[in-house]
Amino acid sequence: MADAKPITFLSDYGYEDEFAGACRAVIALVAPGAVLIDLTHGVPPRDVRRGAVALLDALPYAPAGVHLAIVDPGVGGERRPVAVRVGTEDRVLVGPDNGLLWPAIEALGGAVEAVDVARSAFRLEPVSATFHGRDLFAPVAAGLALGAALTEAGEAIEPGSLARLELPPPRAEANRLVAEVLHLDRFGNATLSARGDSLAGGSVSPGDAVSVEVGGRSLGASFVRTFADGGEGEVLVYLDSSRRLALAVNGGSVAEVLGLGPGSEVTLTVQR
Amino acid sequence: MADAKPITFLSDYGYEDEFAGACRAVIALVAPGAVLIDLTHGVPPRDVRRGAVALLDALPYAPAGVHLAIVDPGVGGERRPVAVRVGTEDRVLVGPDNGLLWPAIEALGGAVEAVDVARSAFRLEPVSATFHGRDLFAPVAAGLALGAALTEAGEAIEPGSLARLELPPPRAEANRLVAEVLHLDRFGNATLSARGDSLAGGSVSPGDAVSVEVGGRSLGASFVRTFADGGEGEVLVYLDSSRRLALAVNGGSVAEVLGLGPGSEVTLTVQR
Amino acid sequence: MADAKPITFLSDYGYEDEFAGACRAVIALVAPGAVLIDLTHGVPPRDVRRGAVALLDALPYAPAGVHLAIVDPGVGGERRPVAVRVGTEDRVLVGPDNGLLWPAIEALGGAVEAVDVARSAFRLEPVSATFHGRDLFAPVAAGLALGAALTEAGEAIEPGSLARLELPPPRAEANRLVAEVLHLDRFGNATLSARGDSLAGGSVSPGDAVSVEVGGRSLGASFVRTFADGGEGEVLVYLDSSRRLALAVNGGSVAEVLGLGPGSEVTLTVQR
Repeated sequence: MADAKPITFLSDYGYEDEFAGACRAVIALVAPGAVLIDLTHGVPPRDVRRGAVALLDALPYAPAGVHLAIVDPGVGGERRPVAVRVGTEDRVLVGPDNGLLWPAIEALGGAVEAVDVARSAFRLEPVSATFHGRDLFAPVAAGLALGAALTEAGEAIEPGSLARLELPPPRAEANRLVAEVLHLDRFGNATLSARGDSLAGGSVSPGDAVSVEVGGRSLGASFVRTFADGGEGEVLVYLDSSRRLALAVNGGSVAEVLGLGPGSEVTLTVQR
Repeated sequence: MADAKPITFLSDYGYEDEFAGACRAVIALVAPGAVLIDLTHGVPPRDVRRGAVALLDALPYAPAGVHLAIVDPGVGGERRPVAVRVGTEDRVLVGPDNGLLWPAIEALGGAVEAVDVARSAFRLEPVSATFHGRDLFAPVAAGLALGAALTEAGEAIEPGSLARLELPPPRAEANRLVAEVLHLDRFGNATLSARGDSLAGGSVSPGDAVSVEVGGRSLGASFVRTFADGGEGEVLVYLDSSRRLALAVNGGSVAEVLGLGPGSEVTLTVQR
Repeated sequence: MADAKPITFLSDYGYEDEFAGACRAVIALVAPGAVLIDLTHGVPPRDVRRGAVALLDALPYAPAGVHLAIVDPGVGGERRPVAVRVGTEDRVLVGPDNGLLWPAIEALGGAVEAVDVARSAFRLEPVSATFHGRDLFAPVAAGLALGAALTEAGEAIEPGSLARLELPPPRAEANRLVAEVLHLDRFGNATLSARGDSLAGGSVSPGDAVSVEVGGRSLGASFVRTFADGGEGEVLVYLDSSRRLALAVNGGSVAEVLGLGPGSEVTLTVQR
C-alpha cells in the first residue's frame, strides 16, 4: 500500500451533500494507502468549463498520479466515462469525456492512451445511473492508484476521439484586446480568457494606464503587479497566478464595481 | 500506528468556522496514524434528520472502522453522548444519542453494544458545555480507532435504549404514492422519502408517464433512468443513487420549478 | 518520510476556487508523508482578525508541527512572508506578517525565532505576485515539515519586529461589561471579545439574570452553561468553548434576533 499513487479530486459536488464524501469513502475502501488531495468541490453545478479551467490551473502543482475530476451533467447518458494517460510524467486523468479533462490533457503533453471505463472491472455493482462518481470514477481512480495498467481499467479507445473544449480566444489588435470573463473568484477578482502576452504583445508594464470597457462603460485602470500596488478602490489589471489577464479592485470586488459575471465581455486598451 | 482504523466524519459544523478543523486536529493528535474521511460538514445547522440520511447513504461505501457523526442541538444537555457497535463488520458509530445515528445503525445490522461516553477516559478535560465534538466525540473516536474496546470508551448502556428516528413513510395505493421531500441537493434535485418499490409495487419502468402533484398543482413527468434521458427542462422521476424516488429537471432545478422545500408533500401517479 | 511533521492549514481561500487545493497539492508534492489538517478555509475574505481568532482557538488542539495560515490582503506588497518558531513545544507558524499569526504566537509561548521567507530556498519559481500561498507559504511549510531548520527556510529577522494584533478589550466595571462582537458562527451564535472572568469578576453563575443591551435596545437574558439550559427562543449568555463570553438563542440565531454583526457593541449587566 505504501506506494499507492496520490489521487487529486475535483468536482462540482459541493459541500452541502455527502457526494464528495462518498467518493472519498470509496477511495479509502479500495486504496487505503493512497493520499487523497481535494482540489475543490465548489465548481458551480454542471459548469464544465469552469471545472476544466480549475483543473488546468491546479494540476501542474500536483504530484504525478491519478487525477479524478467530475463535472458531469450528462451522467448515465451517452458521454463516455474515461481514463486518459498523458505525455508528461506518470499522470492519468479520470472523469467524463465531455471536455472537462481536455485543457489539462493538452497542457500535460496530450493524450497518449485512453480507455472507456463504463464496464470497468473496478466498478461497484450495481452502478447507479446518476452517481458515477461513487460507483465508477472513484473506484477506477483508486484501482489505477494501486498500480493497475490503463488496459485493466477499461476498453481502449482512440485518444484522438476524446471530447475537446476550447477556451474562448481573445481578440487582440495593437494595444487593444477584447476578452471574456472566464470566472470570478471569491475575492471578486475577474480572470479573463486571455494570456498576458496577448495584450499589446506582452509589452505592458506595471504602472501603464489601461482603459477598461464593460457594457458600454469605460474606466481608467492601472496595470499592476499585485493588489497592494493600487490605491484603495482603484480598478487594477494584472497577470494572475496562472499568467492570465485579470481585473481586481484593491480591497474590494471588481465583479461588483463593474457588474461582471462569467462570460462578460471586457475590452482593455493600453494608453500610450 | 499503521493499523489505526479509518475514521469517517460527518457534521453540521459547516465550513466557515474552525469547528470541524478543531475536531480533525484532535483526531490527528490522539490517533496520528488514522486516515480521516470527511463525509460532509454541510448538514444544515441542527438538522438531525438530514444528517441521519446523509450518514445512512454514505456509510455502506466507507471502510469498516469508526464513524463519527455530530449534529447535536442538545449538546451539553440531557441527550447522551454514545458509541455504538453494529452487527455488520467491525464498525462503531460515535455521536449524540438523538436519532442521528439510528437509521445507519439499523442498516448496518443493528446495535449490538453501546456505551455512554460522557465520562469517557478519552475525553479532553475540561470538557466544554457547547463543543462536545472537540472535547468528547473526536477523542473518543480517535481512541476507538487506535483499537480500544468499547468498554474502555464509556459505561455500558442498553442498546435497546438508544434514541430512534424513523423517516416519514410514504402512503402508497395502487399506482399512486404520497411522499415527503426528504431533502434537496445542490443540483436542485429532490429526494423523496420513499424507496423505488413503493411506487406501483416497483413496476414502473423508464418511459412511463407519471403525474406529479405538488401544492394543488399537477404536472406531467416521465420516469427515467437518468437526467439525460429527459428533454431539457422536463420534470423527471427517477431512482436516485440510494434507490429512493427522486425528482429532477434535466439541466435545471426541480426545487425551483416546483417550489419544493424539505418536507413538501408530493403525489406521484403512474399513468396507465 | 514517515516522520514528516503534521501541517495545519487555515485560510480565507474559500471552497469555490482551487486555491486551497493548489496549496494542498504543493504540500503533497514537496512533503508526501506529511499529514495535512485543514482547520478551515472559510475565513471571510481578507478578514485578518477573524483568521487570527480562529487560529488562536484551534491550535492548542493541534499536534505540534507546522501551522500554515494565510489571510493576506497585502500579498505581494510590503508585508513580509514569515516563519516563526514559538516557545511551546516544537511549533512553527508560517504566513504573512500582518497580525494574523500574532494572537496564536502569544498564546503558544511567544516568538523565539523568526525568518523572512520571501527569498526562501523552498519557494517555487517563478513566485507569482498574487498567490504566495501556492508559491511561497505552502512549499516553505512543507520544507519545514520535512525537518528543515528555520534558518534554512529564510533570513533571520528580529522576533520583536513581528506585526501585532490586539483584540478589542472589553470595558468592565462592577456588574457591567461592554464588549464587541468578535464573530458570528454558522449557528448564529455571537462570540464577544471578552473572557468569562471579565464579567462581574468571573462571579456570574448559571441561572443568573443578565440584561443584554444592543443598539439602544435592552433584553432580559439568562446566564447558562449550554444552549439546552434555556427555553426555546430565549436569549442566553454563556461561556463558549474558548472561554469567551457569547450570546445564543436556543434553537435559533441570536445574530438575527438581536441584529448583530461583527463589531456590534454589546453591554451585559448582571442583575443582582
